[in-house]
Amino acid sequence: MRLVRFGEVGYEEPGVVLEDGRVMDASAVVRDYDEGFFACGGLESLAQWIEDGCVGGVLVDEGMRRGAPVKRPSKIICVGKNYMDHVAEFDHLVPEEPVLFMKATSAYCSPHEDVRIPKGSEKLDYEVELAVVIGRTASYVQQKDAREYIAGYSVICDYSERSFQKERSGQWVKGKSADTFAPMGPCMVTKDEVPNPNALRLWCKVNGELRQNGWTGDMRFSVDSLVSYISGFMTLLPGDVIATGTPGGVGMGFKPPRYLQVGNSVEFGIEGIGENRQRVVAF
Amino acid sequence: MRLVRFGEVGYEEPGVVLEDGRVMDASAVVRDYDEGFFACGGLESLAQWIEDGCVGGVLVDEGMRRGAPVKRPSKIICVGKNYMDHVAEFDHLVPEEPVLFMKATSAYCSPHEDVRIPKGSEKLDYEVELAVVIGRTASYVQQKDAREYIAGYSVICDYSERSFQKERSGQWVKGKSADTFAPMGPCMVTKDEVPNPNALRLWCKVNGELRQNGWTGDMRFSVDSLVSYISGFMTLLPGDVIATGTPGGVGMGFKPPRYLQVGNSVEFGIEGIGENRQRVVAF
Repeated sequence: MRLVRFGEVGYEEPGVVLEDGRVMDASAVVRDYDEGFFACGGLESLAQWIEDGCVGGVLVDEGMRRGAPVKRPSKIICVGKNYMDHVAEFDHLVPEEPVLFMKATSAYCSPHEDVRIPKGSEKLDYEVELAVVIGRTASYVQQKDAREYIAGYSVICDYSERSFQKERSGQWVKGKSADTFAPMGPCMVTKDEVPNPNALRLWCKVNGELRQNGWTGDMRFSVDSLVSYISGFMTLLPGDVIATGTPGGVGMGFKPPRYLQVGNSVEFGIEGIGENRQRVVAF
Repeated sequence: MRLVRFGEVGYEEPGVVLEDGRVMDASAVVRDYDEGFFACGGLESLAQWIEDGCVGGVLVDEGMRRGAPVKRPSKIICVGKNYMDHVAEFDHLVPEEPVLFMKATSAYCSPHEDVRIPKGSEKLDYEVELAVVIGRTASYVQQKDAREYIAGYSVICDYSERSFQKERSGQWVKGKSADTFAPMGPCMVTKDEVPNPNALRLWCKVNGELRQNGWTGDMRFSVDSLVSYISGFMTLLPGDVIATGTPGGVGMGFKPPRYLQVGNSVEFGIEGIGENRQRVVAF
């Protein structure tokens, strides 16, 4: 299934994408795609409802605004330096274990809107990443069991302000958390439709120029190992999002660096999941 | 007002502490102390209800379990190295600006329960801190206006696993986020009852021995400057929690270090707000 949300900001309704691309309003059977939905068998109920012919559902107007595909999660855990070409452009230091950091969930937003340059920012950068959405409470999960705890996948851009991240007295969260810095979408694809999340092409273009062109198979730590690893440090809750790291090609890696400017367009996507296009605007 | 929550885990109800120390069930007028409560004038409605004689309220049994005083926040932002004596025992490096990091909100819990040593942990440490609870959405707030954005104050222990934090390939969040690592309570005191949050004694004892004995007036960055500073990097939402840093005396500062062990008791408190007592148990 492909889950989407539509409607005004803060009042999004749940929907599913049909085979012909149209969106069916699922609010007849689902309140929202949130922690309770994933925790209480919501995906199974939704699948059954579709199989039964979407009773009570109505088609959504094509022009309706799209939100992020799941409700604001309880946490967004990001993985740093998970592709070797990005390690090289970042600082050349290869970590022995996954580097973890967080984005404020207030940065979470729809990818159908603009990304805003924060006040005082001069080094706004892009990072396309595979997003993993957690489906079940996960604590001390073994790698071989990791898929059981995943609900599905989406595309996230881990926007980063490099000065805030690296030159402002410590801990990356400072450069990762401005409003609009975590657009996720266009949909969440359930795991049954993505048999191997460790073999997907992902890419990012700025003003039509291909900047990032990676493959999740190049991740130093796979999706499965990350779910297991993170669950040893904190409990993952249903609906939580893991941003699994970005491949090489970010703006800071160029000499001189090529940071985002007002008016730039940023397109980012993952094969089989979807793609997004945003415009860069001033705060 | 002093806000508390009581009832079974995950089903806590809101209450207020009366002048005689008894707790009045406030669920007749309040659903929960959450983002919507603070955002929509809940504190003012609650105050009016009390002034009108708590119509429909009933007293809570003394033996009822106590939860954390506000619902799980959207984020817990922590300030690192904010007292000079702690900077000295941590790494001697004085940051020019506040150091910010996050705790996973899944670590948030009631201080009336045990703190659990995570699997593989050998360096569990305590950090008593003044917690600031946000009352209004705060973005780019000026320091002089900071108090307008505060709902109240509480006591938090920023439990930290020093090996996970400092020896496991980067970013402190890894050592700050295990379940039970963010007990907050016993109550949230509204700001009108704490005229100066920058002049409070705070302390932590282990097995009755005074380990931390600080004063919030020694913070390098005051409550007001922190609200302002943080709001320049991320939007603070109603109900969000800022842990403002810990004074010297943590376990890692001793030579040799004195980390927490199974069976230890940890007591921590702040004058005028309240105190908590926890037991250290194995996971």
